Amino acid sequence: MPYFDAASSAPLHPVARQALLAALDEGWADPSRLYREGRRARLLLDAAREAAAEAVGCRPDELVFTPSGTRAVHDGIAGALAGRRRAGHHLIVSAVEHSSVLHAAATHEADGGTVTDVPVDRTGRVAPGAYAAALREAPGGVALACLQSANHEVGTLQPVAEAAEECAAADVPLLVDAAQSLGWGPTEGNWSLLTASAHKWGGPAGVGLLAVRKGVRFRRVQPADERESGRSPGFENLPAIVAAAASLRAVRAEGAAEAERLRGLVERIRARVPELVPDVEVVGDPERRLPHLVTFSCLYVDGEALLHELDRAEFSVSSGSSCTSSTLTPSHVLRAMGVLSEGNVRVSLPRGTAEADVDRFLEALPGVVAGVRERLGAPKPAEAAADPAPEPEPEPAPEPELVVDSLGKRCPIPVIELAKVIGEVPVGGVVTVLADDEAARLDIPAWCEMRGQTYEGERPADRGVAYRVRRRA
Amino acid sequence: MPYFDAASSAPLHPVARQALLAALDEGWADPSRLYREGRRARLLLDAAREAAAEAVGCRPDELVFTPSGTRAVHDGIAGALAGRRRAGHHLIVSAVEHSSVLHAAATHEADGGTVTDVPVDRTGRVAPGAYAAALREAPGGVALACLQSANHEVGTLQPVAEAAEECAAADVPLLVDAAQSLGWGPTEGNWSLLTASAHKWGGPAGVGLLAVRKGVRFRRVQPADERESGRSPGFENLPAIVAAAASLRAVRAEGAAEAERLRGLVERIRARVPELVPDVEVVGDPERRLPHLVTFSCLYVDGEALLHELDRAEFSVSSGSSCTSSTLTPSHVLRAMGVLSEGNVRVSLPRGTAEADVDRFLEALPGVVAGVRERLGAPKPAEAAADPAPEPEPEPAPEPELVVDSLGKRCPIPVIELAKVIGEVPVGGVVTVLADDEAARLDIPAWCEMRGQTYEGERPADRGVAYRVRRRA
Repeated sequence: MPYFDAASSAPLHPVARQALLAALDEGWADPSRLYREGRRARLLLDAAREAAAEAVGCRPDELVFTPSGTRAVHDGIAGALAGRRRAGHHLIVSAVEHSSVLHAAATHEADGGTVTDVPVDRTGRVAPGAYAAALREAPGGVALACLQSANHEVGTLQPVAEAAEECAAADVPLLVDAAQSLGWGPTEGNWSLLTASAHKWGGPAGVGLLAVRKGVRFRRVQPADERESGRSPGFENLPAIVAAAASLRAVRAEGAAEAERLRGLVERIRARVPELVPDVEVVGDPERRLPHLVTFSCLYVDGEALLHELDRAEFSVSSGSSCTSSTLTPSHVLRAMGVLSEGNVRVSLPRGTAEADVDRFLEALPGVVAGVRERLGAPKPAEAAADPAPEPEPEPAPEPELVVDSLGKRCPIPVIELAKVIGEVPVGGVVTVLADDEAARLDIPAWCEMRGQTYEGERPADRGVAYRVRRRA
Repeated sequence: MPYFDAASSAPLHPVARQALLAALDEGWADPSRLYREGRRARLLLDAAREAAAEAVGCRPDELVFTPSGTRAVHDGIAGALAGRRRAGHHLIVSAVEHSSVLHAAATHEADGGTVTDVPVDRTGRVAPGAYAAALREAPGGVALACLQSANHEVGTLQPVAEAAEECAAADVPLLVDAAQSLGWGPTEGNWSLLTASAHKWGGPAGVGLLAVRKGVRFRRVQPADERESGRSPGFENLPAIVAAAASLRAVRAEGAAEAERLRGLVERIRARVPELVPDVEVVGDPERRLPHLVTFSCLYVDGEALLHELDRAEFSVSSGSSCTSSTLTPSHVLRAMGVLSEGNVRVSLPRGTAEADVDRFLEALPGVVAGVRERLGAPKPAEAAADPAPEPEPEPAPEPELVVDSLGKRCPIPVIELAKVIGEVPVGGVVTVLADDEAARLDIPAWCEMRGQTYEGERPADRGVAYRVRRRA
């Protein structure tokens, strides 16, 4: 049963399991105690810290273990902001950071701080110089900047080394969230703080990493605690820490070969899906990306139904579509990229994924998508392709205007209704879609881009929002 | 090799180990995902929550899992204080709470809040009515009160049901830190919040519990997160959570019989140690106490040396003596109780402790203590007993005064030097000990109480502190 959601949580690596079992027997005692069980636990903890620090590329005394990647991010950002309080209250993050970073930024704003969201291009990548610009244009002293090493939803690698240089030039620390990439290799560049999460690389749940380079100002904001240099309160989860460090070593040792193999499988998905399934947009940077992750969106498809049908076909994937989120808004990553969010599928292959499973997925996908589209009454690819495409008239005739009322209808219905009527107005004519579904804001412009129509913008309506689309062909 | 420090961390219960192994295979996926691996993880999480809630005595939706008992305490106190910000900024805690509670209280003070430390008697117990008094005398609106169910260093049970009533009468929530007792039974009384830690009952590290009763105001202070009702951010450590819940059920099922058995062994230690070892004070409430924990202090003994020798004899215990703490101050619990801190030993028996191991401990202890005393040049029990004890004179002769300079000397040396010279002044005479070791403040009065001498108080000296002791016999 192929599990293709490694970016959410990877199955436990065999080395992690083995190390965890051994450490359950050897490492249950308090490592701060002086008796033999405590000394043994301390030795295990020290060895795990050394191994993890080596993989991160920092000194052991710069690294602490936290209970999760999220807590590493929360505590890392809060500690760095508190440590730099005198430098300023401004925080810079990219618009496509993991929600733990954005939630920490929201907390900072609620506490009176200010935040810049650095935009990304359509591939989800921060532009070179974007952090330098954000630093220049900051409304006050900048305490901290954050940039992920690689995006968790679309796999795009970020220019962290460049951003670190831009930050260093401004004497501002850069925190890198390396959750998605640390299993594949160390983070390049002169970062100041780094966070990661063991269950993303095949380690156990319950372990995050927080590295703070010597010389970076840091002040804990939680109550005092002697453990983990005072930076991560609470009894150490030693068996899990040991397993995390051991599996990080193991995945790194297998890393280059397995990355190459998975990159080939992902390449196959990237190339074949648009051939096999009409009206699909593959998103994310085609070159500068994680080896194991690919994301695409399918027009006229309900993401939740698609996930459900893939699950019935025994494929486990995730989605950034609004209907799969508890807030019914599309993923902030897809929004920041400005790409289609409906029918969104993220495939992230765990290590060891069989080639045959990827091929089975490629076999199953077209039928699954077609089935969902059919049930939704989506325009057939044939119909869509058969859109009459007369010669554009030099002067458009008096605007025939059509209004589609999609109020109360959820993604992907407004886009489907738009697609169905666009042929009913002449070229140069306008269709206005009234919709109150948040996904429409992203998906109507994305549909226009994919179908070669002109998106003319939105304006508030009595209820919902009116989206204007001019027929171009 | 007998491990007698269950109160620090209990060895993993076999049921915990078994459940953990099963959940490593079944519960590594993200329980918020809709595919089969996620649904399976969700089922495990829900079942664990129900089991744990039943053991705690609350509704499942009142209980969240945290990464540790410490984080449960930190987040529980911060959330309750934030939720009751309008009610006031005062926090009430007992003086003998776990350091996680006291550190959270210190953070509250640093943030501008105020704190009352409720005192305890010589057994470490809060007096009935003490919380009512603290509530009455609070300098402003009280946001929260905290009381442990049982003390972690001396085993004394606290009157939580009474304190909860006193708090309820004042409409103030009571947070109970049940870390030491939850494995033995539910916490009685009408508490509002409760915290606990799985590795104290034989569950794995990495799991704490935080229960917040419906209707109790609570506002998270960390960044937002969808997991655990927003009260404990970060990916759930599901295998450990499953193991924690399963082992809590298991230890409860064995609870009454095992408690009775361990109580008998502890009773044996309580009775025999003072018979076998001269100049020992057994501390903590003799009746209202945890079944598995006993603490005593040995005059003229260096706690670190004692632990070291016991470790060599293969007994693992802990100590509240100053020399075993990184801050070189005696345990705040012993200080609040006003009992001897030197040569302090806490014995906390894990479930399944063999009677023979306890007997071996009782056999080994006298020789170990005698050895440490001899190396320190402590007064021999015979000498101490042979103190000349003439009839008290009705009018003391003009005060012969002796000054002992113990500056720069660490516990237990100042007390040993005092004991050595007390016979050199006549009855009614005074010995003044100059000391700068923090433990002297606690141990010189405690020595006086144990040896029937009169402690006359302290005053600042040019260096250190001058402690006055009047010879009574």
